[in-house]
Amino acid sequence: MTIRIGIITISDRASVGVYEDLSGPAIRDTLKAYLRSPWEEVYRLIPDEQPLIEATLKALCDDEGCCLILTTGGTGPAKRDVTPEATTAICEKVLDGFGEQMRAVSLKYVPTAILSRQIAGIRGRSLIINLPGKPKSIRECLDAVFPAVPYCVDLIGGHFLETHEDVLKAFRPKG
Amino acid sequence: MTIRIGIITISDRASVGVYEDLSGPAIRDTLKAYLRSPWEEVYRLIPDEQPLIEATLKALCDDEGCCLILTTGGTGPAKRDVTPEATTAICEKVLDGFGEQMRAVSLKYVPTAILSRQIAGIRGRSLIINLPGKPKSIRECLDAVFPAVPYCVDLIGGHFLETHEDVLKAFRPKG
Amino acid sequence: MTIRIGIITISDRASVGVYEDLSGPAIRDTLKAYLRSPWEEVYRLIPDEQPLIEATLKALCDDEGCCLILTTGGTGPAKRDVTPEATTAICEKVLDGFGEQMRAVSLKYVPTAILSRQIAGIRGRSLIINLPGKPKSIRECLDAVFPAVPYCVDLIGGHFLETHEDVLKAFRPKG
Repeated sequence: MTIRIGIITISDRASVGVYEDLSGPAIRDTLKAYLRSPWEEVYRLIPDEQPLIEATLKALCDDEGCCLILTTGGTGPAKRDVTPEATTAICEKVLDGFGEQMRAVSLKYVPTAILSRQIAGIRGRSLIINLPGKPKSIRECLDAVFPAVPYCVDLIGGHFLETHEDVLKAFRPKG
Repeated sequence: MTIRIGIITISDRASVGVYEDLSGPAIRDTLKAYLRSPWEEVYRLIPDEQPLIEATLKALCDDEGCCLILTTGGTGPAKRDVTPEATTAICEKVLDGFGEQMRAVSLKYVPTAILSRQIAGIRGRSLIINLPGKPKSIRECLDAVFPAVPYCVDLIGGHFLETHEDVLKAFRPKG
Repeated sequence: MTIRIGIITISDRASVGVYEDLSGPAIRDTLKAYLRSPWEEVYRLIPDEQPLIEATLKALCDDEGCCLILTTGGTGPAKRDVTPEATTAICEKVLDGFGEQMRAVSLKYVPTAILSRQIAGIRGRSLIINLPGKPKSIRECLDAVFPAVPYCVDLIGGHFLETHEDVLKAFRPKG
């Protein structure tokens, strides 16, 4: 079975064509650089509407069989930013360590990193991670947390992800 | 329109005059040092009663038009410490990054920093930040998080806050 | 009154004898090394069943009079890992700083530390702390957070815990 990975860009403006989605492609390029295992993407570009974000996440987890879903956008403090709310609503478990570490890493670059509410969570056999909206920050955050992603996906019964070790070294504890 | 900032001291003992409130003035002095924009304060001194804290926060957000509200006290593990509970109850969004960073900074001084449950959150166009009770810790925490405050207030539709850059450099990302 | 401390090992396999519980003894040995005050332990070894974990935590808090309860196991992302859920369900307050600091310390050793969902919380006069499953990680985490434990227990009306200062220096702020 092919490994499927969801990429969801959440942006009012990109979804109506006001600007081009650069964040989804930034995730795609990063995954291409990391992953040695063959995989295919399931891509969605949607506005900042909580019911639609929830429905899209559920579809990618339950119907499309994605073991990993990466979202970009909608994690700030503004009224329209509801990605973490949607993620929390459809996940069984929230993993606070992802958000903590992504903010800690982003804080090295900008003091406004504390405004980001990005989280990660588990729904069934899928790991969902909220990423920031800016392409540069996406790579910084993924570099920080992705070493733990393959083992997490193992633990929830997802696919076995192998990485190019020279680019990104995945860590699986022994025993 | 004048910028209004709420300062709420939450303390059973200070509110009945057992000791003088030194924490509210510590917040005031810090804001005076930081802010170049003219502002006026809305000050309250109340006991550790959750319904009263909630009502006071709501009044300062909804009726008094404060774009920023700083509380001090009531964030520890004791039974009477209910400031974070009251803040969570009346906020639409919680910003975990504030509490994380304030604890990380306080940890450099005291290992008991992990006992603090202080949070920050958004209600409408107001940003609420819980600060510790001790004047010295108040300044340490504000120095750590305030660079992100003006941009956060921008994002939620509040006033435009300008700081004395030599004292506290606010950060607003470009684009 | 003797100080009583709960030690709960939560593991499907250890609880049916598939392997020996090494984590409970690791907690016991660490506490023996830390504590100068006389204390007695209340030990339980149970499977990863949320209702049973909740009932055991409640019994140790409410009936057995433990001022401190340390759990090990069940904090990961897998379906059977429900220790944080059980702890949250029976606690009045959650202290996010404990989980943050334990993850930060474990991150120095393994990038998969971000997968741990361990928390700490207060129920009545009892402090409950979730620890990881591995004996080595247990000690690393306790070394990081235990300096704040005696003062926390003071604040919630528990026993006065004294440590061997050469092994573990407890911190109690003055005034």
